[in-house]
Amino acid sequence: MENRFERGLAKLKEIDGAQGERVVESLKDIAPDFARYVIEFAFGDIYARPGLDLKSREIATVAALTALGNATPQLKVHIHAALNVGCSKEEIVETIMQMAVYAGFPAALNGLFAARDVFQDK
Amino acid sequence: MENRFERGLAKLKEIDGAQGERVVESLKDIAPDFARYVIEFAFGDIYARPGLDLKSREIATVAALTALGNATPQLKVHIHAALNVGCSKEEIVETIMQMAVYAGFPAALNGLFAARDVFQDK
Amino acid sequence: MENRFERGLAKLKEIDGAQGERVVESLKDIAPDFARYVIEFAFGDIYARPGLDLKSREIATVAALTALGNATPQLKVHIHAALNVGCSKEEIVETIMQMAVYAGFPAALNGLFAARDVFQDK
Amino acid sequence: MENRFERGLAKLKEIDGAQGERVVESLKDIAPDFARYVIEFAFGDIYARPGLDLKSREIATVAALTALGNATPQLKVHIHAALNVGCSKEEIVETIMQMAVYAGFPAALNGLFAARDVFQDK
Amino acid sequence: MENRFERGLAKLKEIDGAQGERVVESLKDIAPDFARYVIEFAFGDIYARPGLDLKSREIATVAALTALGNATPQLKVHIHAALNVGCSKEEIVETIMQMAVYAGFPAALNGLFAARDVFQDK
Amino acid sequence: MENRFERGLAKLKEIDGAQGERVVESLKDIAPDFARYVIEFAFGDIYARPGLDLKSREIATVAALTALGNATPQLKVHIHAALNVGCSKEEIVETIMQMAVYAGFPAALNGLFAARDVFQDK
Repeated sequence: MENRFERGLAKLKEIDGAQGERVVESLKDIAPDFARYVIEFAFGDIYARPGLDLKSREIATVAALTALGNATPQLKVHIHAALNVGCSKEEIVETIMQMAVYAGFPAALNGLFAARDVFQDK
Repeated sequence: MENRFERGLAKLKEIDGAQGERVVESLKDIAPDFARYVIEFAFGDIYARPGLDLKSREIATVAALTALGNATPQLKVHIHAALNVGCSKEEIVETIMQMAVYAGFPAALNGLFAARDVFQDK
Repeated sequence: MENRFERGLAKLKEIDGAQGERVVESLKDIAPDFARYVIEFAFGDIYARPGLDLKSREIATVAALTALGNATPQLKVHIHAALNVGCSKEEIVETIMQMAVYAGFPAALNGLFAARDVFQDK
Repeated sequence: MENRFERGLAKLKEIDGAQGERVVESLKDIAPDFARYVIEFAFGDIYARPGLDLKSREIATVAALTALGNATPQLKVHIHAALNVGCSKEEIVETIMQMAVYAGFPAALNGLFAARDVFQDK
Repeated sequence: MENRFERGLAKLKEIDGAQGERVVESLKDIAPDFARYVIEFAFGDIYARPGLDLKSREIATVAALTALGNATPQLKVHIHAALNVGCSKEEIVETIMQMAVYAGFPAALNGLFAARDVFQDK
Repeated sequence: MENRFERGLAKLKEIDGAQGERVVESLKDIAPDFARYVIEFAFGDIYARPGLDLKSREIATVAALTALGNATPQLKVHIHAALNVGCSKEEIVETIMQMAVYAGFPAALNGLFAARDVFQDK
């Protein structure tokens, strides 16, 4: 168990820099075990897998969260993460714009506004 | 206008091989203009843009359609397209599996079953 | 209570012809009360209200069910109903095509295929 | 009709305490009939049914609103209501965490943050 | 190309008055091409089509955005637009209330609150 | 790691009887690791937690999958599971019917039809 957690924490830091710790912190009062699952499963199990590079993984996540359109805070975290693992702003904007085709223009618009916020914060 | 359509048709063939024509064909009776929009906007405007390579574009689309979970026929078309533009089966499977984190296990499961169907057809 | 049910049943017949009875029939074994709620609330309370004509109500419903994309049987019932209350095939096709803007091309495509099935059955 | 409304209002008070009145109040200017439908149908017809205890009804609602992820105000009302009908904080947190499996981690995270807000308000 | 853009811009002004320009403005820094696509495709291609009057088009859009429930800013733009092309407040409220049947009461409630905000701003 | 898998497998058998093995089997060719994650995370981590009884967990899952409406196969598995852990048919039907309030009548209808299929198979 230790191993998955440590592997996940290292992967989360590689992807998210300091932002990952904020998620853990934010769950401390309400559901500390859930923070552990995020790290163990999402980052220790999934993101740590070979077979898909981190840039592609972040493009996939930015695409999905833009399309679903109901998780703006997490979309922003992953736009930040995408920059962090080497995606250019242009690649992120292209990914989000493409979602107009699959989830409609409002979803893409709201994704673009999230990207603008993240880019401005940097 | 001609230009967008021709550019879109060329892009669609590059991405989808023969499958693209089936979509056009399937709309002939009900909404022929809509087939034109698919080609002009989705492929002539969006997929033809520089700034994101086709492999990444297909990973984004496979991710989004898996996460949305309500467009299996189109997901299958894009799993096929992902293979066609150079994604490995492993990269596609990893992309779909990752959607468990963002859209839940049933969405990922149904995406994997769609991939299995496409891989078997080839 | 009687009143809402009778008003709903009359409205359902006005809108759906014979199709409404099939819904009631299909729920007889599993949840007969739910058939009553469909008639009382959806048709007796909502569709029976003044303030929006039946053609507009069916356009709203066809739009929403196309956009949501996870209730094809009910979408078909309402494409049929839209024809029944005086929408032309063209108006229905235009409504569905427009959903590409708000819910993406796959949702619109699947809505168009549903319309094609309903138009062919007639 | 009176009966459904009175039964619904009593049920709403049993479930929600004072919060239910706020919904009615909030609709007074824009759609007073809709407040009546909420009380008559949701509470007078559905929640008043035997066959499922109120605790289970609130767990079902918290689960669904967490999974759908696009109705945070209503999710908070029902987290409050769940506490009110006897669910423990732990049961609510477990219900929300479980939604990670069915609707993804962001939906569960946002549900947990909603629960934290409600728990802190009490 | 010019033609679609100009036709779209004219249609956007007819529908939205000054609001359309704000969308274009808001995208200038992050994705100016996307503003062009909104105008060319959504308004120049789709809304400019004959076969469905603008009132019906706005009812369809208000219905869909209420049902999807994850694009409140765009829903407000289209409630404003619906008024602008001749829908009465009552027709808009009826359209939104009807969405309770197809997307649930929370989606309809949140749509009604969006309408209240737009009506108050006028 | 072994522990989570074994705990998950035992929990899955307790909940699902033989059905769980079918999911594992169905993933063997396409993504065997994903079957492991289903067992380890969904059943070994989440369902195995104390703090919410299995009946309530299955009601939560049936509610969520009915509301999401895009995972009928998994909904059927969990209607079966709900029966298996002691929910009555009536409790399952009530849970699904209640989803009309939160996700609309079509979602509830399709959930009821799924329940009818599962009940008939037994």
